[in-house]
Amino acid sequence: MKKDIKVFGFEKGIDLISGEKLESFQLKVETYGELNSTKSNAVLVCHAFSGSHHVAGNDDELGVGWWDQFVGPGKPIDTNIYFVVCCNNLGGCFGSTGPSSLNPKTQKVYGSTFPNVGVTDWVRSQKMLMEKMKIPCWHLVIGGSLGGMQALEWAIQFPKFIKKAGIIAAAANSSPQNIAMNEVARESIKKDPNYCDGNYAEHGVFPKNGIKTARMLGHITYLSEEHMNQRFGRKFQDDDTKVFEDVNFEVENYLQYKGEKFSSLFDANSYILMTKAMDDYDAGKKRELSSILKNVEAELLIIGFYSDWLYPPEKGKAIQIAAMNNNIKSSYIVLDGEHGHDSFLFATDKYSRIIKNFIKS
Amino acid sequence: MKKDIKVFGFEKGIDLISGEKLESFQLKVETYGELNSTKSNAVLVCHAFSGSHHVAGNDDELGVGWWDQFVGPGKPIDTNIYFVVCCNNLGGCFGSTGPSSLNPKTQKVYGSTFPNVGVTDWVRSQKMLMEKMKIPCWHLVIGGSLGGMQALEWAIQFPKFIKKAGIIAAAANSSPQNIAMNEVARESIKKDPNYCDGNYAEHGVFPKNGIKTARMLGHITYLSEEHMNQRFGRKFQDDDTKVFEDVNFEVENYLQYKGEKFSSLFDANSYILMTKAMDDYDAGKKRELSSILKNVEAELLIIGFYSDWLYPPEKGKAIQIAAMNNNIKSSYIVLDGEHGHDSFLFATDKYSRIIKNFIKS
Repeated sequence: MKKDIKVFGFEKGIDLISGEKLESFQLKVETYGELNSTKSNAVLVCHAFSGSHHVAGNDDELGVGWWDQFVGPGKPIDTNIYFVVCCNNLGGCFGSTGPSSLNPKTQKVYGSTFPNVGVTDWVRSQKMLMEKMKIPCWHLVIGGSLGGMQALEWAIQFPKFIKKAGIIAAAANSSPQNIAMNEVARESIKKDPNYCDGNYAEHGVFPKNGIKTARMLGHITYLSEEHMNQRFGRKFQDDDTKVFEDVNFEVENYLQYKGEKFSSLFDANSYILMTKAMDDYDAGKKRELSSILKNVEAELLIIGFYSDWLYPPEKGKAIQIAAMNNNIKSSYIVLDGEHGHDSFLFATDKYSRIIKNFIKS
Repeated sequence: MKKDIKVFGFEKGIDLISGEKLESFQLKVETYGELNSTKSNAVLVCHAFSGSHHVAGNDDELGVGWWDQFVGPGKPIDTNIYFVVCCNNLGGCFGSTGPSSLNPKTQKVYGSTFPNVGVTDWVRSQKMLMEKMKIPCWHLVIGGSLGGMQALEWAIQFPKFIKKAGIIAAAANSSPQNIAMNEVARESIKKDPNYCDGNYAEHGVFPKNGIKTARMLGHITYLSEEHMNQRFGRKFQDDDTKVFEDVNFEVENYLQYKGEKFSSLFDANSYILMTKAMDDYDAGKKRELSSILKNVEAELLIIGFYSDWLYPPEKGKAIQIAAMNNNIKSSYIVLDGEHGHDSFLFATDKYSRIIKNFIKS
């Protein structure tokens, strides 16, 4: 598989929907496969909350790509046929400009001065990337969770530039329960004394504990209750494999381990920015979703998972209904995936076949 | 309504199921109504996680009792007829001996040296209280949530001393998802630098931030998603009623307000102890629940709420099945309560009538 990693610079910056402006920025991009001569085979994969530009293959630093089960030679998104693009989102912490980057004006880390960036900004920055890459139209924009929100927003904002949109385990907006969970996560980060109002880099510290707690909570929402019952039940952790002495149950050990690991990999301000983007996104912009979708030209594939309680299947159904109200060519399916919200990450025969057929159709 | 507040001392202490011993302890108790001449009208109400001995009526310090809608003259648990007893649980922070009490041996606050106390210990301490109060048998032991676990445990441990048990919005054990949520809450408290490994009193500080985050998370699990949708939706908080500047949505404001308020009312070590008690309780003790219930003589009333996702109705159903396997007189009903887990606190006609009829039957 031909794979490239590039950094694209945007010296003219971007006007953000918040009203703020980012004077200049860069996007870290991975591409797989090759753009064909008619430039008709480009696929944009959008990453979820804690994902990165590293979708497929192995990377010394980032390990196996987060959607490696779906993207590669002979895989549902076949890199022998398609030219796959993924960028680390603006505001992230894997190489694109974000709160942990240097502000070129001040030569200091942005920290708390980094502006809010939302789903619509990401889509607009991806459009700028598309122009720079001389891609005239995406054959497909696809993503799960927050990535699915971007795919939906692409179809809404740029109907002429996208043929298909794959919206997986996503929603046209987050529920108050989603927002509430994210607010607890943000609270735990902000109240870590090392957060320093977002300017921890300046102080040479890092709010590791706050991020750890936030991620532990996140993990609960990504897994289904049924999966937890089957995987952990009420089993006690063996003494010799406890990550901390206080741990009693296996499920505690798992969360402690996962939280601890994540807390040294992800930037705290990016965590807050990403959760805010998720909470604030509202495809319908307070109006009926149907009225917003009326200009959509892309064919939609909407996938939900029964065990997903973060963005449950009804959230996908609402998009499907709005699509049907507009006679948009659209398929909605709910799959069995046992991993709760995280099901979007794991290939099954049925799930893989659906994506493979959708991209080919 | 005749109401008494008393503190009972137990100088001989109690051997705890952890193997540890509490050398001496006291229980703060509120009673309502009067014990009749045959001593046959005593009702023990067991409180939930953050509840107290203050069940009914108004109190200068503790406000309106947590189950005032159910306990009082003419109410479902009629204090003109019944003598109602409620004690603050051992390990709590409302007047009974707990981590924030002085250890009489050292004359220092217990803090981290306070032993783990579980549901079975509470029931055994309540049995000691019963003896001290010269109550031969409870007409009814009743409670919601963690209080319901105590009612169930009473029926199991002391079949000769309880005629009826009301087990509301409770479970024979907590699920791994429950444990996971509690572990996040504990993590946020323990990582508050003011926690000082539980010895914050010694250092003259208090982990207010950690408790606040923990309680914010708790609140999400007490409310139903549907209730949150109806009550908050995606409404933005008015600028002039924001409790913090960072708040955007109403649901965030609500959680911030509730968390902040609670964080100065509840002891951090008690919070950890209570969540541990909830997680560790297992009526079946790793065996089939049916085999454990075989000696139960009390009549059971098991109530669940459709909107409760903390202890969902299936948890009550499991108790009912075990009861039926043992030919225990038992009724199981699932009610509509819109408040999620917290529904057990709010009277509705149907819910009140069911309790009224059960106590009279």
